[in-house]
Amino acid sequence: MIIWQNLTAQQQQQLLARPAIADNQQLSAGVEDIITQVKTQGDRALFSLTEKFDGISLSTLKVSPAQITQAKKALSTERLAAINTAYEQIKSFHQAQQPQDVVVETRPGVVCTLTSQAIESVGLYIPAGSAPLPSTVLMLGVPAKLADCARKVLVCPPDKNGQLADEVLVAADLCGIEEIYTLGGAQAIAALAYGTQTIAPVCKVFGPGNRYVTEAKKQLSQQVPGFAIDMPAGPSEVLVIADGNSNPAFVAADLLSQAEHGPDSQVVLVTDSKALIAEVEQALTQQLAQLSRRDIAEQALSQSRLILTDNLTTAVQVSNQYAPEHLIIQTENPKALLAGIRNAGSVFLGAYTPESAGDYASGTNHVLPTYGYSKVCSSLSLADFYRRFTVQEITKAGLAGLAPCITELTDAEGLDGHKRAVTIRLEPEKAQDIAQNQAPAADISKQGGSNE
Amino acid sequence: MIIWQNLTAQQQQQLLARPAIADNQQLSAGVEDIITQVKTQGDRALFSLTEKFDGISLSTLKVSPAQITQAKKALSTERLAAINTAYEQIKSFHQAQQPQDVVVETRPGVVCTLTSQAIESVGLYIPAGSAPLPSTVLMLGVPAKLADCARKVLVCPPDKNGQLADEVLVAADLCGIEEIYTLGGAQAIAALAYGTQTIAPVCKVFGPGNRYVTEAKKQLSQQVPGFAIDMPAGPSEVLVIADGNSNPAFVAADLLSQAEHGPDSQVVLVTDSKALIAEVEQALTQQLAQLSRRDIAEQALSQSRLILTDNLTTAVQVSNQYAPEHLIIQTENPKALLAGIRNAGSVFLGAYTPESAGDYASGTNHVLPTYGYSKVCSSLSLADFYRRFTVQEITKAGLAGLAPCITELTDAEGLDGHKRAVTIRLEPEKAQDIAQNQAPAADISKQGGSNE
Repeated sequence: MIIWQNLTAQQQQQLLARPAIADNQQLSAGVEDIITQVKTQGDRALFSLTEKFDGISLSTLKVSPAQITQAKKALSTERLAAINTAYEQIKSFHQAQQPQDVVVETRPGVVCTLTSQAIESVGLYIPAGSAPLPSTVLMLGVPAKLADCARKVLVCPPDKNGQLADEVLVAADLCGIEEIYTLGGAQAIAALAYGTQTIAPVCKVFGPGNRYVTEAKKQLSQQVPGFAIDMPAGPSEVLVIADGNSNPAFVAADLLSQAEHGPDSQVVLVTDSKALIAEVEQALTQQLAQLSRRDIAEQALSQSRLILTDNLTTAVQVSNQYAPEHLIIQTENPKALLAGIRNAGSVFLGAYTPESAGDYASGTNHVLPTYGYSKVCSSLSLADFYRRFTVQEITKAGLAGLAPCITELTDAEGLDGHKRAVTIRLEPEKAQDIAQNQAPAADISKQGGSNE
Repeated sequence: MIIWQNLTAQQQQQLLARPAIADNQQLSAGVEDIITQVKTQGDRALFSLTEKFDGISLSTLKVSPAQITQAKKALSTERLAAINTAYEQIKSFHQAQQPQDVVVETRPGVVCTLTSQAIESVGLYIPAGSAPLPSTVLMLGVPAKLADCARKVLVCPPDKNGQLADEVLVAADLCGIEEIYTLGGAQAIAALAYGTQTIAPVCKVFGPGNRYVTEAKKQLSQQVPGFAIDMPAGPSEVLVIADGNSNPAFVAADLLSQAEHGPDSQVVLVTDSKALIAEVEQALTQQLAQLSRRDIAEQALSQSRLILTDNLTTAVQVSNQYAPEHLIIQTENPKALLAGIRNAGSVFLGAYTPESAGDYASGTNHVLPTYGYSKVCSSLSLADFYRRFTVQEITKAGLAGLAPCITELTDAEGLDGHKRAVTIRLEPEKAQDIAQNQAPAADISKQGGSNE
């Protein structure tokens, strides 16, 4: 237990600092080498790298429609229903995020529009460690489907038999993904960025991954012009704000659900109740013993922080300083604290809103900014599968109305080519135009007189 | 003149490729050194680097309120009015972009919200080359003001007298920017990322700059956790789509207004009219002679491409393949072509909508994706000064309704800590809860039966 107010500002900062990610030159060079192989040898490199890293010699990368039909048959009714329910939940929330055009006539004859268009081709990376991750397929595939991206490509590493999990195939099919490749690691990201004989390149890659995948996304987004990634990645993390009324068993369960993700998971409890900390510690011990992934959770917990603050206002400040990926507010009146929350990826309000609800099926996206990036990055949403751009249409009278402003500023900036592009359009009948546009001219002087 | 259909697909691709940006190790190492100096020596490095690169020994970095008052007095009524008009135009369009919360009850008792909050601290970089750039101050400062970012910091390199231009100070004051520093180059970006004694660090930096600034933004966004930049930068570019009805003098003026930006500016004309190409070439020669920056424009024009296509549909395809920063459609019916446009930063429709209108005063933002990034990146808008995040609030009954879905998926993914965080909340009265929630359970099976 750490007593917040006993620490200096510097100690407080250190307490909340993420563990430094060591500059791993071996990893970086290894990924660079994989990228070069894929760039120069195409498919041949994909087959040999899959053999090397996944231990399986594949004859084809692309998943066939027959494999998807087979996957649907293989799954239980309950599992199919669960995938469908999660799909509908996520769809319901993301569909409501469809972008709307903004159209403003900023002055007579000058119409500006902010509009959106789906990114043409997207790549969705689905990790496959100890278990399949159909939830991640849905978190990436549903918004890609709703945005109606022309090409949606899913990549996922093969299991030791060279197969993808039935759950992954069924979820991908639900999202209308027609290109699925049995391919993982840095080589998959390189294939999506540069393209090979089998896999055409995509514009943007989404999804979590191990450190090879993360490093490949980082390197490729720097080296391939016009290629983008969703967001920087770091270890998963949760911060729970609780008070004397919180149920310690619920708090402990939430901390453990984060801790089981990986030994590098970050787990933080901030509370104004000393008694709660003791009770949570007890509950953690009790619940930990029952977890199948208790070794992983134990390692993560050994780095956890249980912080005692004077009051809940300070607890909110601690959370804002930490900027957690997941923030659970399990206090008597959680909504009262929400207004003060500045930085968080996704917020879970109240005793019956565990993080795992958002991980699977509340409807929110589980791809979230980590490692302090929730101060500047957005949670993944439908907007990330679109790009915004502007359109303007100006009448001759509208341009005449803007001309005094533009030409004065081009003079200030010494760009007479910019000025000429305006004046040449008004030249032959210039005097007449100005007479016609007295109203906009009057507007200008009125606007000019006010700073707000 | 290049006849598009006479080229092979590969030649077409080469024709539209941006010039490769050479990997300049000297530049990269130089910027790395500047960053290290600022990180380790703080203000002292800022003063010495300013003396080295700007040739001026400053005694203070921060601009005083008196200097702003002075700047307002120094400017002519016309110039003040022009800055005010541009401010009002940009404000009018960006104010209409204020984000709205999205609230969805995705099933009874499960309420999900997508909400936005201003990024707490933003840095705005304003270049200062041959002339002041008040327009860029407005393009960054207006959305920062409208988002109400708590800290707005503007940096701009000093002139040879150690001053910032009056136009820059007046525009910054209009945007409510209270922290203005006389500081430019890579050292300014490093100060904003790491902070010094005088300048507290910011979360996100916006704005264009020379290659030192661009390289510093790139390096710092990779090395400082939680620090973000607006978008990747490249040389400015325009593509004009025109037909036999277009006014060649207008087209030439638009091409030249882009060409005068810099010798590396990209200028492309695509048309279905051979006659227009000849007329534009003539108009270019004529207008070029009158430009003060004709040497720069001439260099850019020597790399320009005048492309003849069979028809306007192909012209649109060429534009989509190129993905221009600025796209001017100057045809008889420009709106008819707009529907086919996939990739562009900002679109200018019709004979009376020159790019310079958008550069200064139509209301749209002039910070746009270049170098092919308009395929994946958005034009700068109010959204870039906010971050989106989600909030969910679930009732006990709502959680019980979701439980079958979540626990089936946690089983599939082997995460029993995630499962436990749900079941522990429903345990004591579990049977009773399920009875109470037959309606949601029925919902699940209904949803489970449908793939859409």
